[in-house]
Amino acid sequence: MTHMIDIGAAAGIATQVGDLLGTFAFAISGALMAVRKNFDIVGIAVLACATAVGGGIIRDLVVGVTPTAFVQLRYPAVALLAALLIFLWHPPRRLTHRPLDVADAIGLGVFCVTGTVTAYTHGLGAPSAAALGVVTAVGGGIIRDILAGVRPSILHPEQEIYAVPAMLGAVITALLLHVGHSTVITGTLASLAVVVLRVLALRFHWRAPLARPTSRRPKD
Amino acid sequence: MTHMIDIGAAAGIATQVGDLLGTFAFAISGALMAVRKNFDIVGIAVLACATAVGGGIIRDLVVGVTPTAFVQLRYPAVALLAALLIFLWHPPRRLTHRPLDVADAIGLGVFCVTGTVTAYTHGLGAPSAAALGVVTAVGGGIIRDILAGVRPSILHPEQEIYAVPAMLGAVITALLLHVGHSTVITGTLASLAVVVLRVLALRFHWRAPLARPTSRRPKD
Amino acid sequence: MTHMIDIGAAAGIATQVGDLLGTFAFAISGALMAVRKNFDIVGIAVLACATAVGGGIIRDLVVGVTPTAFVQLRYPAVALLAALLIFLWHPPRRLTHRPLDVADAIGLGVFCVTGTVTAYTHGLGAPSAAALGVVTAVGGGIIRDILAGVRPSILHPEQEIYAVPAMLGAVITALLLHVGHSTVITGTLASLAVVVLRVLALRFHWRAPLARPTSRRPKD
Repeated sequence: MTHMIDIGAAAGIATQVGDLLGTFAFAISGALMAVRKNFDIVGIAVLACATAVGGGIIRDLVVGVTPTAFVQLRYPAVALLAALLIFLWHPPRRLTHRPLDVADAIGLGVFCVTGTVTAYTHGLGAPSAAALGVVTAVGGGIIRDILAGVRPSILHPEQEIYAVPAMLGAVITALLLHVGHSTVITGTLASLAVVVLRVLALRFHWRAPLARPTSRRPKD
Repeated sequence: MTHMIDIGAAAGIATQVGDLLGTFAFAISGALMAVRKNFDIVGIAVLACATAVGGGIIRDLVVGVTPTAFVQLRYPAVALLAALLIFLWHPPRRLTHRPLDVADAIGLGVFCVTGTVTAYTHGLGAPSAAALGVVTAVGGGIIRDILAGVRPSILHPEQEIYAVPAMLGAVITALLLHVGHSTVITGTLASLAVVVLRVLALRFHWRAPLARPTSRRPKD
Repeated sequence: MTHMIDIGAAAGIATQVGDLLGTFAFAISGALMAVRKNFDIVGIAVLACATAVGGGIIRDLVVGVTPTAFVQLRYPAVALLAALLIFLWHPPRRLTHRPLDVADAIGLGVFCVTGTVTAYTHGLGAPSAAALGVVTAVGGGIIRDILAGVRPSILHPEQEIYAVPAMLGAVITALLLHVGHSTVITGTLASLAVVVLRVLALRFHWRAPLARPTSRRPKD
């Protein structure tokens, strides 16, 4: 796998560290959603794990490797640790929204970059790698929301932009990989930019345009 | 892959043309569902893509190849084009049902045939290929409906027959492949028959039988 | 595949028999859910099949083999037979809960053991095999519930323990495989124990602890 060598050992370790951080963050978001829905301890653990490893499993199945979550047990272990922490200590249910959103933003920011890098190192072209990076980043949250019975953030009409930051992060990462200037520092900066962009979007209610309202259109 | 040679270059191209057409049609149906649900432009694009490539990704994972949607970028490109068209021009929300159903019928008709052909050319036996063809055809619509929070058409108790036309198309295609008489013309005719059958079912409210009503059964 | 030899021909056949039994039981649960939701005959067949083969498809994709459900047609055939039986004879809708739960418990008990064995024989380590066994066991039921539009049993806050028996069965099976003492008898006993534990949990309303109620917590 020549790409793997191109990117280098430091980047490989950084990707793993990032994946662990993203796994932890998404697991926190899943556990908080479970608390909000009043799930029991098993439901908290299940939703934390599904959110944390769901996107990565899709990514690994697409690139054709055994899903990392089933090979390297530190990923489910980190997710279970997050679930335990939230089970033991969590904000009152009505105050779970903000920490859930922030944890989700961190997972989103990390996974759109590491997902793109992983896809690229397994031989996908830069555009495909960016697309799979986005799927990796948004997949876990979609699984979390469907299992919990709430509308996925990525589709919610009254929601702040969610997929756009992940797309930007994935495209920037794929471009840097393509021109050979992807480093641990650029990856970290790209992740941070996505997290900040998502949090700012939440803070200032940045939304994507709706399709033109039909009530103002002439009959045609 | 000897099967691939049996089917021939013309059929291979026809399958790709069909897949592009089905991708476009399913993307239109996903985008119209997003409009009906008042999603923003990102939600329209996401739902169009998920509907258009969802069934094919499942098919490719089952036969063990890298999902086409991540290798050949014309598939997501066609889906995004459909999303853009619907974003720019679409009927009023209350009038989206009929065009959505027709677009969905076209995708269903095309994918049950091309999905069966693709599965067969990758070495599955005729019955398995037909089963995977049906999954390819109904998969995208199920993903669309679950993401949008509506009950999947295939399961809706008050719905006209949906899976039956796809099953017929897939079984006919598998039979033709098995006896070596599958051609571009038979495939096109099978697809057309499925589309017509589904549209007629919608028009004349053809429904599958329910299980016996329990109220009329004696207590036992 | 040396593991396959370790386990032996008898265990291989037992695993297949178990998988057929679990497939039948889960198909019954899916068909009963379809009856409860008043689905038509196609909806009954679709939900029976999706419930019966869903978990196994995820398992096979993770271990990297062509999903058994598409290779060995006896699995979908058994699921369709179950659907037909339930279509022809089923309890009144309001009495479907108990038989559905029992059928689901049987599927859960069988699949957590056979799923773990299958994962282990394909080279996964014992802890990973147990994790995949649990996913195999709970996957079909989650797919059934999401398609039918009800909250998955595994997450329901007011539900008796569901994942815990499956986890116990999978961990015991993985331990026995690891120490080389897994036999047809131990596998059968482990499955039975899971079924009994789940049915007792339903009978006596055993539940997992909720996260500490927030209303009684001091502000901190």
